[in-house]
Amino acid sequence: MLTRIDHVGIACHDLEEKIAFYETTFGLVLASREVNEAQGVKEAMMHVADGPSGSSYIQLLEPLGPDTPVGKFLAKRGEGVHHVGYGVDDVAAALEAIGAKDVRLLDRRPRHGSMGASIAFLHPKDVGGVLTELVQASEGQHEGE
Amino acid sequence: MLTRIDHVGIACHDLEEKIAFYETTFGLVLASREVNEAQGVKEAMMHVADGPSGSSYIQLLEPLGPDTPVGKFLAKRGEGVHHVGYGVDDVAAALEAIGAKDVRLLDRRPRHGSMGASIAFLHPKDVGGVLTELVQASEGQHEGE
Repeated sequence: MLTRIDHVGIACHDLEEKIAFYETTFGLVLASREVNEAQGVKEAMMHVADGPSGSSYIQLLEPLGPDTPVGKFLAKRGEGVHHVGYGVDDVAAALEAIGAKDVRLLDRRPRHGSMGASIAFLHPKDVGGVLTELVQASEGQHEGE
Repeated sequence: MLTRIDHVGIACHDLEEKIAFYETTFGLVLASREVNEAQGVKEAMMHVADGPSGSSYIQLLEPLGPDTPVGKFLAKRGEGVHHVGYGVDDVAAALEAIGAKDVRLLDRRPRHGSMGASIAFLHPKDVGGVLTELVQASEGQHEGE
């Protein structure tokens, strides 16, 4: 079902500083930068690698305010890994299959994610403490590879 | 410098339970199981995907005791993402380059990691709260792909 590690989502206080850090220290290239009002974040996708099923990224996340999910995460745990996103071919089908296995879905239907992807989150308490995201890349992303 | 997301390391209380969970829920296949006395863990590599530079895994980590690094992590934070491992072609060269950039190295020289890899850890305080591992896969791993 999972086709790749699509991204590791990392919460940070200062997006620009962390973009520069990952560029300078590890040589990663900024692939996309956007604001997701629905999730209360501004974010950057730092490209790590391409693979048969799609690309892998580090996703840097800066909250738009303290009352957002990432803002609350930072206040409680500090900077660090916020979630893990896995590639799937069909996020709606994956949700149906996983929802039938006693894993609570934070999204019953796919919603808009980074770079035009369709995404959905699974409840971290049912995935061993890991906030887990399913990512179906946009058609354009697939074609671009 | 980074060639792939090699693995996401996840701390858990019960390795066998989590292996079964990742098999059943996500269809991942157990690739390797070993005990690393030096790091105080027993661990399982769950295969996610193959790519041009190597494979990607979920690494499940159960501590050998409460006074190990993963045991202390579990006591403090509970189950969840413990570290992120990135593929590199030459871990010794990567350590030298990164150590020259104000990132503290937890390992000055590569040591033995999962599946015969040479690995080294970077200080999480210098990588935005992320315990970061560099992984040079064993030659056998490369040839096997």
